[in-house]
Amino acid sequence: MKISELGEFGLIGLLADIVDRTKNPRDISWQRLLIGIGDDAAAWQGDSSIQLATTDSLIQDTHFDLNITTWEELGWKAIAVNLSDISAMGGIPIFALISLALPGELETGCISGLYQGMAQIANQFGVAIVGGNIASASKTMITVTVLGSLESKSALTRSAAVPGDQVAVTGYLGLSAAGLKMLKQKLSFDAETSQLLRRAHLQPIPRIKEGQVLLRHEVRAAIDISDGLIADLTHICKASKVSAKINKDSVPIHPILQSNFKSDCQQLALSGGEDYELLFTASSQVINQIKQAISCPVTVIGEITEGTPGQVTLSDAAGKSIPWQQGGWEHFKSKT
Amino acid sequence: MKISELGEFGLIGLLADIVDRTKNPRDISWQRLLIGIGDDAAAWQGDSSIQLATTDSLIQDTHFDLNITTWEELGWKAIAVNLSDISAMGGIPIFALISLALPGELETGCISGLYQGMAQIANQFGVAIVGGNIASASKTMITVTVLGSLESKSALTRSAAVPGDQVAVTGYLGLSAAGLKMLKQKLSFDAETSQLLRRAHLQPIPRIKEGQVLLRHEVRAAIDISDGLIADLTHICKASKVSAKINKDSVPIHPILQSNFKSDCQQLALSGGEDYELLFTASSQVINQIKQAISCPVTVIGEITEGTPGQVTLSDAAGKSIPWQQGGWEHFKSKT
Repeated sequence: MKISELGEFGLIGLLADIVDRTKNPRDISWQRLLIGIGDDAAAWQGDSSIQLATTDSLIQDTHFDLNITTWEELGWKAIAVNLSDISAMGGIPIFALISLALPGELETGCISGLYQGMAQIANQFGVAIVGGNIASASKTMITVTVLGSLESKSALTRSAAVPGDQVAVTGYLGLSAAGLKMLKQKLSFDAETSQLLRRAHLQPIPRIKEGQVLLRHEVRAAIDISDGLIADLTHICKASKVSAKINKDSVPIHPILQSNFKSDCQQLALSGGEDYELLFTASSQVINQIKQAISCPVTVIGEITEGTPGQVTLSDAAGKSIPWQQGGWEHFKSKT
Repeated sequence: MKISELGEFGLIGLLADIVDRTKNPRDISWQRLLIGIGDDAAAWQGDSSIQLATTDSLIQDTHFDLNITTWEELGWKAIAVNLSDISAMGGIPIFALISLALPGELETGCISGLYQGMAQIANQFGVAIVGGNIASASKTMITVTVLGSLESKSALTRSAAVPGDQVAVTGYLGLSAAGLKMLKQKLSFDAETSQLLRRAHLQPIPRIKEGQVLLRHEVRAAIDISDGLIADLTHICKASKVSAKINKDSVPIHPILQSNFKSDCQQLALSGGEDYELLFTASSQVINQIKQAISCPVTVIGEITEGTPGQVTLSDAAGKSIPWQQGGWEHFKSKT
């Protein structure tokens, strides 16, 4: 079977099985491991606190198009998507390592720009860039590994949602996908709208402080929205062996998105992806406390239920089910 | 200026400067950092012991050719080259994260093979594969990050060589480059030779235990040989601001290499690269102790001297200087 037939998540399952089947559980490394393959970051017991690590790549023509991004924005985003994985565990990012594959004909100014973008976001979040690797390749590929730690004795995970939890999300959804659409299709908007959409897609701000607030308020289940709201809620539901119901009319859509993308703003918000907002589940009481504790919007969009593990159902405000076939981002799968 | 004109090491210097110029030294992350960009691995003060991290990529058609390697061998090597960086610091490898870029038309069996090769070497060295990332791309690229720790209060570094030190190396040099030549040029040898050369190139064994022995015997300067003996000794000399003299006739060449590659075995050993042996400097007394403590050959091949920082001079047994222009591996530079 080809990878494209199995799909990204099938392949991850296959590889996780190989690792699990061949591991030696007597090794100290495995004994210290708390969370392995399948969550936003790995977690293990360090000398005195829990340590986190995550890695993610941005690949030319898969994740980015040099016609629509500057190198500074690309550097920012390459770090941001990894910080977002740390935020989804409730962690504090500390160190970053950068592995670059670059065509030799690139101007050095491009890579200086890339690193300036990286340094800018790293400084903003107190992260030190401590090492890496550079090699020649036909296309540009940026792999970042971010290491961090936890202040608490447990992490936010995808597998801790329980029936009865409400489902909530930080910020607004769909802006990044709308930004990509604007850039790809060369759509024109006023300066404020253009800037908001461009930044949402190319310079997302990871929810680091917000993730730590969730953890402090004893939220247990969270993920960052990279594949798309429904796809990422499906990841939570599969890992937690629960179902979820979403009221599509309560999904937070920014007024600028509503007015400029009338016909498809809801689809962008439900499955656009790359929002890097936090999607989490908790009791309504906890969610109310969190609303007081953080400055960005927090919106309840549905609830966790018993039922087929991994199933996400969409309904309107009246509670009527709505058919939904549009998937989120998945590598190797052709998009419908 | 193009990257190909600046070269790999010029580019690393440029990027290290950007990071250094823009860092905020008051951040906890920078305050904990002990060794940043420019050594085999980064090192920082953990809660109670020194922590290490390194990352390295294998890129299709840059580092490997799918016509001459199996996927199992490729998986082994992708982990091995990172473990070797940990060994060059004297460290203990513990966790690995894997970031894969893969063409969708690959058979899943290939990637199962890749992971089996990874799991095999990971188990052999007690390393847990704890996470990663998979994305689609036109060519295969494997980026591995390995995290480890140190038993001692300081690491082996490139910058600790001092005049008067002897220069020594573990094992034999040139076997990996000879293996690559055999595979590329389809050379025929007897089964034992073929296997030795193939394994040297495709399944190198990182010197993990040996690196720890060096550290325990208070060796301070070391590097693993990936770019080639002279190139890597040049890295030590530049970082330590010293010169070195090598007696070319004392460079350890395996008898099988001597008998099968008569005309170029010395060139393969001096600049072939990818040996993943440890090159280190210490007093003759310390080196004699190390020879007793480890089972692989340890050979003194020269000495560290005062003089132009970064200069490596080659001589014959009589001490007569030999001109040497053949460089080691450097990305982006055209080979002479």
